[in-house]
Order: sequence, then structure tokens, then C-alpha cells
Amino acid sequence: MNTIQSYIETHQQTFINELIDLLKIPSISADSIYKNDVLKTAEVIKTRLQEAGCDLVEIHPTAGYPIVYGEKIIDPKLPTVLVYGHYDVQPPDPLNLWDSPPFEPVIKNTELHPEGAIFARGACDDKGQMYMHIKAMQFMTETNQLPCNVKFMIEGEEEVGSVNLSTFVKQNREKLANDVILISDTGMIAKDVPSITTGLRGLSYVEVEVIGPNRDLHSGLYGGAVANPINILAKMIASLHDDNNHITIPGFYDKVEELSAEERAEMAKAPFNLEAYQKALNIEAVYGEKGYTTNERNSIRPTLDVNGIWGGYTGEGAKTVIASKAYAKISMRLVPHQDWEEITQLFKNHFESLAPKGVTVKVTPHHGGQGYVTPIDNIAYQAASKAYEETFSKTPIPQRSGGSIPIVALFEQELNSKTILMGFGLDSDAIHSPNEHFGVWNYLKGIETIPWFYKYFVELSK
Amino acid sequence: MNTIQSYIETHQQTFINELIDLLKIPSISADSIYKNDVLKTAEVIKTRLQEAGCDLVEIHPTAGYPIVYGEKIIDPKLPTVLVYGHYDVQPPDPLNLWDSPPFEPVIKNTELHPEGAIFARGACDDKGQMYMHIKAMQFMTETNQLPCNVKFMIEGEEEVGSVNLSTFVKQNREKLANDVILISDTGMIAKDVPSITTGLRGLSYVEVEVIGPNRDLHSGLYGGAVANPINILAKMIASLHDDNNHITIPGFYDKVEELSAEERAEMAKAPFNLEAYQKALNIEAVYGEKGYTTNERNSIRPTLDVNGIWGGYTGEGAKTVIASKAYAKISMRLVPHQDWEEITQLFKNHFESLAPKGVTVKVTPHHGGQGYVTPIDNIAYQAASKAYEETFSKTPIPQRSGGSIPIVALFEQELNSKTILMGFGLDSDAIHSPNEHFGVWNYLKGIETIPWFYKYFVELSK
Repeated sequence: MNTIQSYIETHQQTFINELIDLLKIPSISADSIYKNDVLKTAEVIKTRLQEAGCDLVEIHPTAGYPIVYGEKIIDPKLPTVLVYGHYDVQPPDPLNLWDSPPFEPVIKNTELHPEGAIFARGACDDKGQMYMHIKAMQFMTETNQLPCNVKFMIEGEEEVGSVNLSTFVKQNREKLANDVILISDTGMIAKDVPSITTGLRGLSYVEVEVIGPNRDLHSGLYGGAVANPINILAKMIASLHDDNNHITIPGFYDKVEELSAEERAEMAKAPFNLEAYQKALNIEAVYGEKGYTTNERNSIRPTLDVNGIWGGYTGEGAKTVIASKAYAKISMRLVPHQDWEEITQLFKNHFESLAPKGVTVKVTPHHGGQGYVTPIDNIAYQAASKAYEETFSKTPIPQRSGGSIPIVALFEQELNSKTILMGFGLDSDAIHSPNEHFGVWNYLKGIETIPWFYKYFVELSK
Repeated sequence: MNTIQSYIETHQQTFINELIDLLKIPSISADSIYKNDVLKTAEVIKTRLQEAGCDLVEIHPTAGYPIVYGEKIIDPKLPTVLVYGHYDVQPPDPLNLWDSPPFEPVIKNTELHPEGAIFARGACDDKGQMYMHIKAMQFMTETNQLPCNVKFMIEGEEEVGSVNLSTFVKQNREKLANDVILISDTGMIAKDVPSITTGLRGLSYVEVEVIGPNRDLHSGLYGGAVANPINILAKMIASLHDDNNHITIPGFYDKVEELSAEERAEMAKAPFNLEAYQKALNIEAVYGEKGYTTNERNSIRPTLDVNGIWGGYTGEGAKTVIASKAYAKISMRLVPHQDWEEITQLFKNHFESLAPKGVTVKVTPHHGGQGYVTPIDNIAYQAASKAYEETFSKTPIPQRSGGSIPIVALFEQELNSKTILMGFGLDSDAIHSPNEHFGVWNYLKGIETIPWFYKYFVELSK
């Protein structure tokens, strides 16, 4: 593996250019306008996997966007690593907040990325991090250092809930059989503080609609006499949190795992500077559930956030109208043991019960997934830890992430194998936000670290 | 005046066609895209006033849209009627709820309008009702039955708060001197229940902005740890009403005029069928301030309604984001004695005080106006009442309207004259809503009734 550094030095410009080409395709799975771009991206991934040395690459159609599968089996008796990633991206809006067009990648230096960062939607989540594995694979095959079998499963619906991946996994247990699943779709604490994500939050995403009168009404003639769907929606949303910012949905916390004082003390050791955190977001204070720290609020505690709201007149100027309908998109982040389908049902029952006479309420579940925790005492975690030690000269810190990769829990259930989350992005990379970017240093560091994981995983598997 | 009916029979098709031509111009004052259409409408009004017999017609430029002024002075010693109306219209959205394009007028029969109704934005508010006065004027001049002096003041900014009309009025007290102001920009209880509007509500219209983190954030990584501007906005809006739907802004009710039991009993005599009201709106129940009837809630009581709200991801599918900003347009309907500027300040102070640390709040006043009450014991009201008796064979019922014509209070203050509100529209005409329309019968009935007002007003003035 010692040749990896020189290999990267030789090929880094190509690695960067190939990623930039990939980022130019607007593979937005949430918006059907981009259907052809999403499909085109799958084709590019297929080609890249072939070039990287896969013996077999297939594009599997699904009810939605296809799954790209690739494999190189060098010896059935050797361990098999299954790499998962996704080639779809989040919608880029609000567009006006981007400093450069989201699908015209540019490299700019930032305070945290003096070596430059690639700015584009998907740069970090997940095209950049997924592509590190394809380049690491290329290194291992070209230099005959691939120590085991590899399988790739790259999907195009992660940002919309992996709705069809679960079916694919259930129908292809044999094909996907593996000893460990490797994913880079999370972050690390800091460039000099490598970390491995050991926990993920689950997710329940719903859309709500409050329906009032059968038409928009003049707010002068009807104001104060009929229920205003927007006012009612605001009231219903406000009631979902109490004064301590606990969520008020009955039964919501029933299955929440309470961490021990020891575990919380362990978590508190991770480096965190509240002032810097607030400064980076330009907020005067943090805000959240009473009795928990910021790092606990966004990792071990479930949350409820409105992701979008709309209704009535939103154009220029003033319109004195009472809208017939008001809408919101609401997501809940869940912790291990909370079942997303059960929580979705609890939300639906509670939210509908909040509606006063005079309006009707519709709750439409979008998608969801279970939370997940990786034990740190298995060989896969240890192999990852040693890999980081090789390339960062530091032992990585295990950390719980607030994000969700719903499919991870399903992998364990269907494929009966653990997932290792080796993330190389930073929280400040603005994934899901305007000006998403991925540090060139982080990108290359990921390509450098991954082969070491293969090496140690095979060694520890003996 | 007895020839008015035959005159209408002869000219009704022309009257309808001219109104339809006027309705084809999208004179939306709230949206600058339509600037040229608004200006074009002023030109058309100018021409129509000349054709109707005005000796002098001028287009007065303002800082915004121009005011069309016309007059016919037959004898300075005779009384003068000042007609006010507006040629601008509300924005038509949501467009998808219109059965026919808002600026392609069509005549359709409805249950309430078996003689047909003209469907178009502005048909009733206010192009149709304003144009009745021009046609009534034409009748009186062509048949030499104009009994007094007439002045017309038709503006193009009523739907955005008449921001420049007040300056014009203050600077032209001489030119606008009159004995009574006549306006048709309100409704009547029913086709067989003529009514005269004796009260109008004031208005305060503001836009609010809740600003959180300096960028949109990933709801997984930051959810539960920072104040979500949309959740906060919902909470702030919800807190503006208490459980009895009283408005919670300190000082909001201080100057509200409480009607006596007698006055409320008088009001309660107006025909009103709650079941029919709910059925017409397809709502299961009405909703409003505890202790007041529906007719009181939308006329003698002040109200607060959100007219529009937006923030975060509102596109197709799901986006797990915490928006950096959230917005709402909020209007308050005020009753006589509440000062709109004072109320706007009270709202601003209170709303800003509601913001928790972690967000900042901006409140931008849009516009506003005072409420108004017309006494029913003056000769102008009596002249109007006798006019209705001539054409409806019924004494009209005095009623308070929930709507606002902010300029009316200013007229009294600056021109020292009373305003008579002769409205011929119906609540069901859907003004400010999709499928706005104006009954052909109501339109012609207005043209028939107006000349009688002139006759009786001059007689009673002697």
C-alpha cells in the first residue's frame, strides 16, 4: 500500500477532473425535470467502474432510478467488501444564495481548505465521497494490491429515501453477499481530527396540508370569521414543541434510548467550541431541547423540523387574501430503537387531531428510515481505525452523526452485515445547502485511506 | 330620471362591451411587471370620461400610478358630487383555480346570476362598479338631466394602499372641493336586499422576516441544535391569538369601539343564514373571536390574518434542510378609532419582542388606512336610501362592511365631506379570489340607481 501516495501524486489532476465532470450533471432525484440527467449519471458511473477494474458492471432498472452494480471477485474464499454510495444529489435551491452555479464546479481556496475545495452540488454528498472508492479501487487493481473481493452498489434515490433500493437488496441477497459494507457519506470532526461515524439517526419525512374554505377569500369580508389555514397551520406546528423544546407527539419518546452518564461523558470529550460554532453560523445563541448539549441535540436526541412551508400570496407587494390551503414539509430525525413507520403514524394521528373544526388536514408520508449504531469492537471498525492511523497518524474518534442513511439499518437486516462509515467531509462543507463543497485535500486523503482499510480488514479477517 | 330604464335597454350591450374591454387590461398595481398595462388603463378611463361628458379630464402623475381626474361644472352654486373609484386590480393568483383566464372576460350564468355574470379579475372590484358611475354620468349629460356638478377621481393604487392618493388629495383640496363623495366599491346583502355600507374597517399590512443561520443547513447535522426560522415563525404567529382568538398584541384593543347591546341587536336583524354561509364555503364550522357572531367578527371587530407564508423547500419531493430565512405577509383589519399607524407600531414592537435568541426579526410595514363610519341621519344617506327605493322598491339596510377603503377616512379629514358607499356587488362575487365576477343585473341596476341619488341629493340640499 505504500505506493498509494506516489500513485495519487501522479494521478490527482485526473482524479479531480473526473469528479468535476461528474458534478456537471444535475442528477436531482427529487425533481422529475432532471430525469435524463440522473439516468446519464448512472451511465457515467458504470463506465468509471469498468475503467477502475470491475469485471462485471450492470445497470439494474428499478421502479424509480437505476442502481449501478459492479464487482471484482478475485477469490470466493477471500472476504468481500460491499461499497455503497449514491449518484443523485439534493435540489440546489435557493439558487440565488450560490456564489457560483451549482452545476458548474469551481475550485476555490477557503480558510479550512487552503489547498482548494471543489464547489458544486454533490461535491461532498455524495458524488465526491463515493468516487473516492472508485479511484481507490483503480489503484488497487492497477497495482495488483486488491487483497479481496469488491462489490459496488451505487444508487440514484438516496436523497428521496432510497425507495427502490430496499426491494433491490431483498431480491439480490446472493449477489450482494458480503463481509462488510463500506460507505463514505458522512463527515469527520476536523481535518486533523479523523473520526468514524458509529451512529446514524433515523428519519420520518411527511408533507401536511391544511384545507379551509373552498376558495381564496377576501380577508376584509371574511377575516376573523373563518379559520385561516395558514394561521391554523402555524398554530399546529407551534404546538409540536413545548416550552422546553420537547416534542409533544404522544408516545414519541417511548422507545428513545437514553444514554448513560458515562456514555454522555465520553461524547463530551469530542472537541467542540460553542463560540466558533455560533460564529460559523452567525447566530447569537444555539436553540434546542432543554437538558442536552448541542452535540447531544443533533446526534443522540430525536428532533422535528419544518423543512418547507407555503401558502397564500407570496409575490411582490400586498394581497389581502385568506388562502384556501396551506402546506408544510416536516421531517423528524429519529434515534436508534425508534421505528420510523410507527413514528410516522404517531405524527399523523396527533397532527390530524390538532385540526379545529372549520379545516381539514391531510398528512402524506414521504419516506423514512431507521437509525443505526455500529459497535466499535468488531474487526471492521478496527481495520478502519488502523487505516486512519496510517494516513492521519492519529486514532480516529468514534462519533454519532445527526444525519440519516436510512438504508444502513436495512443492510444489516437483509444482508446480515455491519456497515463502516468512513466519512471525509466536514460539517462546514455545506451539504444540502448553497455553496456545497468538498476539500481537494479531503478527497485525496479519502482515496489514500481506503486501500489501507482493505489491507487491514483482510488481515484481521484471517 | 324616468327615462333611465329605456336608456339602459337601448345601450346595455355597449355598456357591457365597454366594461369587457376595460377588464381585458391586466392593471395589477402590486406587480411592477404590469406597469404599462396599469398606465394604459388610466388612458382608457380618461377617454371614457370625456365621452361621458366631462368638460375637463386630466391624468395626474404621482410618485406611483397616475390619478385620472374629470369634472363637469354646470353651476358653481349647485352642489358637487365627487365620485371616487380605482382602475387597478388585485393579482389573480392562484391562476390554476380560475375556470377561465382572469383577463379574458366571459359571461356565464350562475345560480345567483341567472341573467349572467362577467367573470374577470376586477369585474366587481372595482372596474365594474367604478364604470357604472361613468355610464350614469353619460345618461345624465346626454339627456340633460345632470342636476349638479360632478367630479371624478379614479386612482390606480387602491389595491396597494393608495400610497400616493393622499398626497394628491392634500395638494388639491380646492380642485376636489365637494358636498358629498360617492363610491361603489363595496357589496350589498343580496340582490333583493339592497344595503348601504355605513362602516369600513381600517387596515395595517406588514411583511415579516425571521432570519436564522447565515445559510441553509442540513436538517440532520443541525436539526434540533439551532433555531429553525420556520418553526420559530410558526410559533410567533401562533402566539398572536389566545385560546379565545383574541389578539394578544399589548394595547391592540385599547381604542376599539364597543357597540351597545342595542346596536348589536340592530345588526343582528340583517338576514344571515349560518348554514348557507358554511355551505357556500364548504366548511364544517365558522371560527373566530369568542363572544361575537360571524357578522360581528367580520365587521365591528378587529382581526389579524396571515395572507401569505413561505420558507425552505417548497418544490416537488423532499429536501432535508433548515432554511436560513422564513417570511410571512400579515394584515390586520381595524375598526373605527384604532389608528393604523399606531397599531402597526404596536405589532412591530410586539412581534420583534417575540423572537428568541438565535434568530433576528424584521418587520416591514406595507401600507394601511383608518376605519370609517357614515352617519345615517345626513341628507346624503337619505338621498341614497330614496334612490334604492326607486329602483329596488325597498328601503336599503345600513350595514358595516369588513373591508377597507383606507382613503375614505382621509377624505373626511382633508376634504371635510362625508362618503356614501353604494355597493352593488355580492359577497359571492369572489373579489380578491379566483373567478371574480359581477352580475350583469347588478351592473345595470347600479347604472339605473345612481342618477336617482343625484336627483334626491340636489333636492334635499335645497
